This record gives sequence, structure tokens and C-alpha cells, in this order.
Amino acid sequence: MQDGYIQLAHGNGGRLMRELLESVVFPALGSRESGTDGSAVAPDGRVPVLASDSFTVQPLFFPGGNIGSLAIHGTLNDLAVSGAEPAALTFNLVIEEGFAIAELRSILETAGAAAREAGVAIVGGDTKVVPRGQGSGVLIATTGLGWRKADSMLDIHAVQPGDVVLVSGPVGDHGATVMMAREDFGLSSDLVSDAACILPLARLIREQTGLRFMRDPTRGGLATVLHEIAHATGLGARLQESAIPVRPEVTGVCQLLGFNPLLLACEGRIVAIAAEDAADEILACWRTHPLGSQAARIGTLVPGGTVSLVTPLGGQRFIDELGEDPLPRIC
Amino acid sequence: MQDGYIQLAHGNGGRLMRELLESVVFPALGSRESGTDGSAVAPDGRVPVLASDSFTVQPLFFPGGNIGSLAIHGTLNDLAVSGAEPAALTFNLVIEEGFAIAELRSILETAGAAAREAGVAIVGGDTKVVPRGQGSGVLIATTGLGWRKADSMLDIHAVQPGDVVLVSGPVGDHGATVMMAREDFGLSSDLVSDAACILPLARLIREQTGLRFMRDPTRGGLATVLHEIAHATGLGARLQESAIPVRPEVTGVCQLLGFNPLLLACEGRIVAIAAEDAADEILACWRTHPLGSQAARIGTLVPGGTVSLVTPLGGQRFIDELGEDPLPRIC
Repeated sequence: MQDGYIQLAHGNGGRLMRELLESVVFPALGSRESGTDGSAVAPDGRVPVLASDSFTVQPLFFPGGNIGSLAIHGTLNDLAVSGAEPAALTFNLVIEEGFAIAELRSILETAGAAAREAGVAIVGGDTKVVPRGQGSGVLIATTGLGWRKADSMLDIHAVQPGDVVLVSGPVGDHGATVMMAREDFGLSSDLVSDAACILPLARLIREQTGLRFMRDPTRGGLATVLHEIAHATGLGARLQESAIPVRPEVTGVCQLLGFNPLLLACEGRIVAIAAEDAADEILACWRTHPLGSQAARIGTLVPGGTVSLVTPLGGQRFIDELGEDPLPRIC
Repeated sequence: MQDGYIQLAHGNGGRLMRELLESVVFPALGSRESGTDGSAVAPDGRVPVLASDSFTVQPLFFPGGNIGSLAIHGTLNDLAVSGAEPAALTFNLVIEEGFAIAELRSILETAGAAAREAGVAIVGGDTKVVPRGQGSGVLIATTGLGWRKADSMLDIHAVQPGDVVLVSGPVGDHGATVMMAREDFGLSSDLVSDAACILPLARLIREQTGLRFMRDPTRGGLATVLHEIAHATGLGARLQESAIPVRPEVTGVCQLLGFNPLLLACEGRIVAIAAEDAADEILACWRTHPLGSQAARIGTLVPGGTVSLVTPLGGQRFIDELGEDPLPRIC
């Protein structure tokens, strides 16, 4: 990667971001953003897992949540998909000078409620104020400590050709909702973000034999999770377009504005890769829970690193990795 | 606290910040920024401790370090003063659109080197890009996981009247250095930040009988640590002005610009509170290490919640808690 200047697309979860991480961030830090979203740090008994994320969203409040709930759910979800049970959270708050304290209170109360609802304590953090014009209202970074069984086999490298791709519910709700809440398209909609804590869904299936890997499809959406698997393992994915749950409101917004719902962020969904003979049991487990009532089997992993969509008429369409940002930036 | 708007002084570590935390942040989150900088989260065997901080500094590069080393040292230091041995770090990076990748690389290489030097792995994190004008170049949040002996007695509430106040080296170097590096005073100076990993100093004394409490005097400096003790315990501090190590360069800058070095941030010092009969041993331990060569006993804790300075002529001067920010903001 040649040196140059940071573009917004370096943050979109796609190709430019991967290049930035692989050529600049990871070599310098001697670290990587783990393929399981969390990272085991000690090999004895219960294994501690740390997951960490920072949250910027415009607008700060959107139908279905705000940056406060997003910051709690986001890190709990990262722990959940790594197979860990969350034990504690830290909460770093960066506030821009001039921000209204009533709004701050509202954001924090939502965050506190989200943590309490998940039964996880916020045990520390810090608060910084940046000068007016050097922030985006409120920025939050959260880190979670969780515990995973030492013998958990969940791993991006465990996936195999012929494995099934499962999704716990409709995709793209969060991305579509935030875009509509931010941009002045002169449209009204009933869109609501899917933002939620998916820990209950992860608990239902994380001990399941044949479950290989889970990931929450946030930045870059479902397609980007599949591209990450392709980069890590060389296995692509072939999806049945008609099997992918997408709400009609999301489809409508995407058709109108030219977006692909498979590239839009979710904040309350799980993508799971499972052995063929485990898939039905996982779907059945998920469907017992309200968050998983629309869970679906959407495709299979295939040799070769491409992600493609089989259309209802039998055609095949390739979904490229995100390059230059084709979407308004939402996180 | 009445609702209103965030001021820069809400971030200065002083009174306004404490009011914001106590009336808005902690009640909403059901958390507190722990009095030990880290927080024990499970009571069995070795006790895990999480510490978390976010880092903004202008300029990003300053004599003695940059925001990358600061972000690693800051969180390692928080773990260190809570008596914990660090085990792992996470690293959240928020980059402003347009930032030069060569500078980013330099910051991250410094961070990676700081973590390696401390022997602590960066095990996870994430990278976000915010639009031009909504950031301050680079913002970093780090979280550390450490392990503390379950029977550690270190606690802000363990301090007693008559306890001795110790500092591991000269105060105010970081604050004075960053101010001089940022402001165009038309002055040159030989100031260098004290930014460093103080884990070696903490290891030397954390098992010492009679050690009550450690804290690193960052935002708000030495005086603010003593005010925090006063708020938590009702015990004030009486310091001997002539005993407090301050480098001549720092004294010079402060006299010229009207700042109090006791309110300036340090990033490589420890303030320790210890029983009278343990103080000499702690000082002797510290002085065996280059970072502690100028360690000093500077005063005692006294009943009543005031922080005062006994001058060389025997007068007494009270040091108020930071209110409206009297200093250029450095973090």
C-alpha cells in the first residue's frame, strides 16, 4: 500500500479498509483484529476473550436506538459471536464541546439500560471532551471481557466447502434506517433498525456440534462477512437470492436509491456457518426466540473465493467486495 | 447539575468533570470510573482488572512521544497503579478522513513498540474513519486486561490520616511539554514529556505492606489526585512545596505563563499513599530504577478535605480543585 491520505472508504469494512489494516495497522501494532471479533488471551480453564469497538453514527438517534445502545450491543454482540459469555464492559466516552447535556443523558441512559438488560456491568471507562469542531457530537468506544470454553471450536478457519450459510433474520435494516434518518430524501418510512443484543441467539447455538463460525454482519453487511471468510479461507459463497430475508421496506429503499441490501449494516443479526447436518437444528433453535423468528438458510460455501447470488430465474450475479464507498457512510 | 451544554472544562479532570460524571454519566450507566483506575470483575483466584482510556492530544507528536505511545502507556499505567499485571490490550483507532498514512504508520509503530517493550500483546480492536472536520486527526481508545492478587488491599478508601504522600519523579513535564509544543509562544525549550510505562515502578512496590493506594497523576496533575482522595475519603493533604520535585524547565514555563505545575498532567509518574513506616522502603525501591531516581516524600494526609502547600517560608497556600479550565487543554 502506498502512503497517501485516509479516505472515508478506508473505514467501510471493504477492500481499502482491509488493505489499510493489513499493510499499516496490524504490522505496526503486532496485532490483528481477530477473525472471531474477540481474542483469547490465556489458555487456562475458562478462556478470557476481549472484544472492542468504537462507535460513530450520524444521526446519533435513529428509529430503534441511539449511539448508546449501539455501543453496548455492538461489543456484547462481538463477544457473543466469538462464543463467549460477557462478564464486564468498559465505556469510553468522547464528547464534543457544546453538546447538549440532556441528549448526553439520554444516550447514556439508553446505554445503561442496554447493559442492565443483558445483565452485564459497566465496570470502568473514561470521559474526554474535545474542542468544538473536532468531534461528531459523541463518540463511544466499548470493550467487553467475556469467558469462552477453552475447547470451543468456533473459528473462521474451521469452515469447509459445502457448509451452510445461515442468517438469524432480515438483513440491512440498520443501514437502511440510518441512511433514511440522515439523508433528506423527502421520504418517510416505517424502517426501524434491527439493533439488538444477539447474545440470546448465540447462547442457543454456541454449543451445537457442527457450528463452525459466527459473525455479526455490521459494517459492509452480509456480503462483507462472506468476503472476509473468502480472504481467510479461500472459500466463496453461493447464495440463493430468494432465500435471503429482506424486509419489503428495505427492499423498497434499496431499489429507490440503488443500494444493495447485502452490503448494508445489520446491528442485531448473526451470520452462522454450519455443517450441512447441523443447519436445521440451528435454525430450529433460533426460531424459538423472537429475534430469530425469520432465521433462514441462505446458501452454501463453495471452492473458489467468489461471493455470488443465484437469482430466482437461475442466473448468477457476483457481489464484489466493497471498494470505494458506494454508500453514504453510516459508521 | 442543570442540563446545559458541554464545556471544555467538563473534560479537565476537575470539579465540572466530577459533577458531570456524578450527575450524568455514572447514574445513567450504573457504573463509575473506578477509584483505582481499573475494576475487578470476578472474585475468584486471580482477579481480572479492566482499565480503559481514550486519548486525544494536540499536537499528536510531542517531544518524548506521540499519541500512539501515550495510548499504550496510559492504559498500562492505569492497570499498574491498580496493582495489576497487564495481560492484554485492545486498541480502537478513529482516524479523520484526509489524515496522512505515513503519520498514521508512525503513530502505530510507536504504539506497537510501546506494547512490545512492556511485553503486552495487542489482541484486538477496531478501526473507524470519520469524515473530515469531525475528528482531530487520530483518536485512540485502549483497554487493558490485567490480573491482580485477590487479596490486594490497594484502595482509595484504605488511606488514613498521617499517611505519607510520595511521588515517583518530577511533576508537570508532560503538561508543560505539550503546551509548549502546541502554543506558538515564540519560545524554545528543552522540555521533554515524562510519558513512560510505569509498570516497573508499580511492580517494585505493589506487594509492600503499608502501601495504601497508587494513582497516576494525568489530567489535572498531582493536585487533582489529592482532591480525588479528599472527595472519596474526606482526608486532605498538606504538601511541603520545597519537597515536590519539579524540573527547572517546568518551573520556568509555569512562572512565565502563570500555570501551577501541580495541576499539569504527568504521563509517567505515580503518586502513592503509604503508611509512615512504609514510606522509606517504597522510596528506596523506586530509587533503584531510572524512572524513580527522583522519587520524593512530599507531604501527609490530614483531616479535613483541603489540599494545601506549606511554602519554604512556612506560609500555607490552598490549592483549589480545577474549576473552569485555567489551562490550555492538552487531553
